[in-house]
Amino acid sequence: MHRLLRSALALVALAFAAAPALAELRTQSITYQHDGVELEGFLVWDASKATAQAPQPGVVVCHEWWGNSQYAHERAKKLAELGYVAFALDLYGKGKLTGDAKQAQAWSGELYGNVELLRGRAKAGYDVLAKQPQVDATRIAAIGYCMGGTVALELARAGAPLRAIVPFHASKLSSLGTADDNARITATITVCHGGDDAFVSTEELAKFVAEMKAAKLDYQFLSYAGAVHSFTNRDADKYGIPGVAYDAKADARSWEHMKLALAEAFVQVSKR
Amino acid sequence: MHRLLRSALALVALAFAAAPALAELRTQSITYQHDGVELEGFLVWDASKATAQAPQPGVVVCHEWWGNSQYAHERAKKLAELGYVAFALDLYGKGKLTGDAKQAQAWSGELYGNVELLRGRAKAGYDVLAKQPQVDATRIAAIGYCMGGTVALELARAGAPLRAIVPFHASKLSSLGTADDNARITATITVCHGGDDAFVSTEELAKFVAEMKAAKLDYQFLSYAGAVHSFTNRDADKYGIPGVAYDAKADARSWEHMKLALAEAFVQVSKR
Repeated sequence: MHRLLRSALALVALAFAAAPALAELRTQSITYQHDGVELEGFLVWDASKATAQAPQPGVVVCHEWWGNSQYAHERAKKLAELGYVAFALDLYGKGKLTGDAKQAQAWSGELYGNVELLRGRAKAGYDVLAKQPQVDATRIAAIGYCMGGTVALELARAGAPLRAIVPFHASKLSSLGTADDNARITATITVCHGGDDAFVSTEELAKFVAEMKAAKLDYQFLSYAGAVHSFTNRDADKYGIPGVAYDAKADARSWEHMKLALAEAFVQVSKR
Repeated sequence: MHRLLRSALALVALAFAAAPALAELRTQSITYQHDGVELEGFLVWDASKATAQAPQPGVVVCHEWWGNSQYAHERAKKLAELGYVAFALDLYGKGKLTGDAKQAQAWSGELYGNVELLRGRAKAGYDVLAKQPQVDATRIAAIGYCMGGTVALELARAGAPLRAIVPFHASKLSSLGTADDNARITATITVCHGGDDAFVSTEELAKFVAEMKAAKLDYQFLSYAGAVHSFTNRDADKYGIPGVAYDAKADARSWEHMKLALAEAFVQVSKR
């Protein structure tokens, strides 16, 4: 009888061991420098999964033209819930956050007008993530929203060895520098595009496709019917900008498509 | 002590009850009629999941121009492994299967040249699946390959109340009848397209998009860079047809995208 009880209890223990550990989300505000400018990024990870002993893949999150907002942080948290170490980098400078389109245009304009600065800023954020002890620096991806989608691509063009890039409703997909810069891209690119995004011209799309083909890059172009610019941002409508709106369906679908792209890029290590 | 043992054993029972049942894949060849022609379809399901007491969603599989081949059956089996009841319908007639492009062109040409016949044949297959006791007839989707992708769309245009349509490298996406027929489509459409598929002109793609917009339909257009016609078929290369080739990466990605589309269409019942 004692032996039977022991066997039964062992089975119970086994059953419980198979249950997933409870998530322990940790967040950390990290101040860092680039070219004399103080930047503030937001790091988030699940301490039950990502540790120095068991480093996990990292994902850089590139913010919209509003700055490193709560929205970017939320996406980073969702990535951490998937087991990744996410870092919402800062492209503007500590505290530079706005809801005013003119201000956002001015700040983003500075970066668009200076490709080296934009790439350097992005790379500085990437470096912060890559050196975290709980990050597997050989497995890093970048995602980004609107301007941040462009930045995620430019980060790869700056030479960051990314495995995957997922731009959501990116304003510009073709190189901000020269087409030759695409040769530095090592990532699979998954473009999540609003089918009715009037901010991206057919000429720009054709230019991007031509660049990808010329550089023999691996990409997917995923287009969601009816979706317009900023389709992933629940607050998109409140800005009152024509052609900018939230689309719950396209948001959900593109997030699932991103999950697949990240899983593929991070798991198939031996195929690279 | 007895009580402790009973509790332990109850927990063990609970743990085992939570474990998934072993799959019991069943296949059945079904002969049916349409307009005086004998057709032979292939039904497959997991008997541990789909029963008359617990009917599961159904998926119609529409074959390539070669006929209701082993390839279509394999895809149906993979769908059954996901828990769906899959039916590889027959568009040509019992035993009409070929590896000869000229013969395939003749058979498919008969259907392309007679929209009512094509739609009727497709609908006859749909009806066989819908009446199976282990199928939840309110949740049926259609997928298809090459010509079959076109047929999956035409099945909806014929009035079959589908929840999702997933055409893979379809030759033609716009209506074979009139544009008005799109009003009968109730499904979400997920087009899985080879980015370099020379069998589909840019004019045809533009026509499809215009039709979808006019009919206010919900669709996603997923394009895989470098993939050409027949990219999901491992045997594509052996036919020696220019512009036809297998692409393992695009095959894997599009299958995962299909899984998401089906899960979304079948699960969110209350939102419809």
